[in-house]
Amino acid sequence: MSVRWAQVSDAPVVARLLHDFNTEFDTPSPGPAVLTARLEELLPDGRTTALLAGDPAVAVALLTSRPNVWYDGPVLLLDELYVVPEHRGRGIGTALVERLVHDARAAGVALVEVNVDEGDVDARRFYERHGFASGDVAPDERAFYYSRELRPPLG
Amino acid sequence: MSVRWAQVSDAPVVARLLHDFNTEFDTPSPGPAVLTARLEELLPDGRTTALLAGDPAVAVALLTSRPNVWYDGPVLLLDELYVVPEHRGRGIGTALVERLVHDARAAGVALVEVNVDEGDVDARRFYERHGFASGDVAPDERAFYYSRELRPPLG
Repeated sequence: MSVRWAQVSDAPVVARLLHDFNTEFDTPSPGPAVLTARLEELLPDGRTTALLAGDPAVAVALLTSRPNVWYDGPVLLLDELYVVPEHRGRGIGTALVERLVHDARAAGVALVEVNVDEGDVDARRFYERHGFASGDVAPDERAFYYSRELRPPLG
Repeated sequence: MSVRWAQVSDAPVVARLLHDFNTEFDTPSPGPAVLTARLEELLPDGRTTALLAGDPAVAVALLTSRPNVWYDGPVLLLDELYVVPEHRGRGIGTALVERLVHDARAAGVALVEVNVDEGDVDARRFYERHGFASGDVAPDERAFYYSRELRPPLG
C-alpha cells in the first residue's frame, strides 16, 4: 500500500475521504465541494498537510502544525485518520501513522498529538500501540481535550 | 486588573511567568533566558500570542493558532494559563479567559481548545464554567488528549 503526501491537486481526493468519514460517523459535513475549496486554500500554506494511502486513495491522515514555546520545532496535530470500511484491518492506519512519525521526525517535529474519544477503545489502543500516551495513561493522570466553539463549522 | 496582549518587548515577562509556572509544578523549564529567546522568535509571527494581567504582570495566558479544515477561521489552543500564587482566587483567570474569548470571537476564531489533566478537578470545573466541554462531558463521551514526543523539550 503506497503512502504519499497529498499535493494541492489532491484536494478533491482528500475532501471526498473527509466527507465520507463524517458521513459514516453521522457528523455534519459541508460536502466535498466546500471541503475541496477549503483544502485548496489551506494545503499551499504548509501548515495543513495530508497523507494518502493507496492509488486510488483509500485512506487519509489530515494534520495541522503549530508552534510550541517548550520545543525547538513544530507540533503536529493529527486532526483526522480515516480508512474506508472495506480496506480496514489491513494495517493501512498503521502504515499512515508510521510514515507520519518517520517523516515528522526527519522534519524536526517535536511532538505529534491526537485527540481520541474516551469511548473509542480501539482507537485508544491503536495510538497507545504507536507510542502515544495521555499522561501516563493511568486513570486520573490522563488529560482531557476541551473546546469551546465560537463559530459554527462550514456547511 | 488590566489585561493586555503581550508585545514582543514583553517576552521576558511572559518567559518569567512560564518559568515560574513550570517550577511551581515540578515540570522542567529551560529557564527564563531560553524562553525569552524562544518567545522573541515566536511572538512576531502572530501564531503564538499571550495575554498578560496586571502591571507588573501577575498572570499569563499563552496561545497558539492553527488552521482547521472544518472551520472558516483559525483554532486557538490555550497552551498555558498561570496566575502567581499570591494573586489566586481574585478572578484573574476568569478575566484572562473572558478577554481571550471576547477578542478571539471578534477576530473570527472558530474554536478555542485546552487540554486539562483529568485529576485537576478545579481546572476542569473552571473551563466547564467558561463554556468549554470535552465531548458532552459525560463519562465515555469525553475526549482524551494523546501525544508522542519525537524530540526532547528545550533546556
